Amino acid sequence: MKVGKESFKIESDVRITSTYTIAGPMEGNGNFGSYYDIVLENDEWGCDSHEKCETKMHKEAIKGVMEKAKATDESVDMLFGGDLLNQIIATSYSARDFDISYVGLYGACSTFGLSLAVGAMLIGGNYIRNGIVCTSSHYATAERQYRYPLELGTQPTPSSQWTVTGAGASFLEASSDRTYPKITGVTIGRVIDMGINDANNMGAAMAPSCADTIMQHLSDFGRDAEYYDMIISGDLGKYGRQVLHYLCKQNGYELANVLNDAGAMIYNNSQKKSVQGGSGAGCSSIVFNSYFYKEMMRGNFKKILLVPTGALLSKIETLQGETIPAVSHAIAIEMDD
Amino acid sequence: MKVGKESFKIESDVRITSTYTIAGPMEGNGNFGSYYDIVLENDEWGCDSHEKCETKMHKEAIKGVMEKAKATDESVDMLFGGDLLNQIIATSYSARDFDISYVGLYGACSTFGLSLAVGAMLIGGNYIRNGIVCTSSHYATAERQYRYPLELGTQPTPSSQWTVTGAGASFLEASSDRTYPKITGVTIGRVIDMGINDANNMGAAMAPSCADTIMQHLSDFGRDAEYYDMIISGDLGKYGRQVLHYLCKQNGYELANVLNDAGAMIYNNSQKKSVQGGSGAGCSSIVFNSYFYKEMMRGNFKKILLVPTGALLSKIETLQGETIPAVSHAIAIEMDD
Repeated sequence: MKVGKESFKIESDVRITSTYTIAGPMEGNGNFGSYYDIVLENDEWGCDSHEKCETKMHKEAIKGVMEKAKATDESVDMLFGGDLLNQIIATSYSARDFDISYVGLYGACSTFGLSLAVGAMLIGGNYIRNGIVCTSSHYATAERQYRYPLELGTQPTPSSQWTVTGAGASFLEASSDRTYPKITGVTIGRVIDMGINDANNMGAAMAPSCADTIMQHLSDFGRDAEYYDMIISGDLGKYGRQVLHYLCKQNGYELANVLNDAGAMIYNNSQKKSVQGGSGAGCSSIVFNSYFYKEMMRGNFKKILLVPTGALLSKIETLQGETIPAVSHAIAIEMDD
Repeated sequence: MKVGKESFKIESDVRITSTYTIAGPMEGNGNFGSYYDIVLENDEWGCDSHEKCETKMHKEAIKGVMEKAKATDESVDMLFGGDLLNQIIATSYSARDFDISYVGLYGACSTFGLSLAVGAMLIGGNYIRNGIVCTSSHYATAERQYRYPLELGTQPTPSSQWTVTGAGASFLEASSDRTYPKITGVTIGRVIDMGINDANNMGAAMAPSCADTIMQHLSDFGRDAEYYDMIISGDLGKYGRQVLHYLCKQNGYELANVLNDAGAMIYNNSQKKSVQGGSGAGCSSIVFNSYFYKEMMRGNFKKILLVPTGALLSKIETLQGETIPAVSHAIAIEMDD
């Protein structure tokens, strides 16, 4: 059911009944190392290219969540997901190994949120009984595609973020089992472009869109920010999180007590080369599917709002002098009382 | 409601109440020139890059269909769509000009089908009342990105297709007005890879996936091929259409009387440089939204099955020696009796 301008209430019980995460070595040394199902020892995982490694991570994350959910190709109704590579190949090349209807989505680093939203609505609308959402990213593939070959050793700018190497999968299903978190509502954002044209400052480019979606969500559902134990923005990084906080405050929404950012949380302070924190379609996906999911299951969070954010740029548009549009989607995930 | 393995019945009335198409000069000289809303005089449309031209076409197609549907940003619930450019920039850069929730999808040349399917299910599931589906492609942007710079004057191979320059938009809405075609069912395909690795022979790469989706659709709904006045495969081209016909026949489905292909139909026989016919995310979209839509409205087709097909390759996977996975989605579009 539509609520307000951009939000949708999921009226039936759509729950996340299993998750699976695979993280790179640097992510393994970060704040959530013990929460991931697999931490890779290196960035190749036995593959002869980083693209093939990302594809393997994506595929193994789908397999891993299917195993946990005791699901088979026959019992799963739909695969949802995407990644940052051109033509979302990590996702599509993974999908060919499953006999499951495939929906490819693209929202840059917001893809995890978009995929959860579409999956939850299709289960809520009684089209499918279950579905798998998986998104991924890889530091080396993203650097090569969006920026410079790693071999150049280019210095990151102070505003830059580190693309997360990781793949995270969620198993969504219609279930009345109250021990699992439930997707109760989603807000599908519009595209916002405030004229930022620095591709090394994604936090600033995405924060206005994130603020827009969070405020729209709270307004559509008539909630205060503190309805949630935590609002987790996608991958704005430390600076972007400040911008988001400022923009919301200016518009009368004080998020100080509840706001955090998946990108700002994923690495620890000793990991200086991450600069502002993590980013990438795998970032909010592995942070949610490991730490937040497990802590919700343990009762340490009751209600969270996950707001993955995406910068919809491409190298070619940046070279042609374009600014960076962004989009963010909000997913309300709650435990039954 | 799910029907069989990969299909979904759309139980409420979801109709296509307006369409809008913009075509390039070569498409204007093809078989459906008089059916397009706008035919461009050249491939730039006053823009300083072909990517910007594709983005303008995409945006103007959305605007055009909104004008026909007398819709505003406030009255439209959701934008769906995608294109072939890296990071689907034609779609995302168009979306920033509308204050409408945005769902970016990627299925290569099958994106029009995927977007219609997701849009129809979200309307059928009572989440949204209406939505706009738009996909586009441009010969010059696709050549540059997937193959060679046009300046090289590279000779096409005999199996190659010509990427369509065009953008087509459909306005979907919950409506009981029986004068408009209705989306009655959809089949969301799985990814099929039969080991074709020639990026200049997309018809062969996509035909097995198209055959799989068509046979699954007919089996899921318990229909004969001749239930439909016409089954229109996405952009297999002339050779790919033969492969599709052969594969279905081998499996006991005779499509001879009903099968046609949007790519094989779009250009006329004097347009030799198109070789096997058209392709691209704009191909099935402008062929359906112009010719088929208008002829359905005139009563000349009652029931069609549109099956856009997509080759999920990227340049980097081809260079790394990978084969080409493909996906196809079937959309049943019918007039009330």
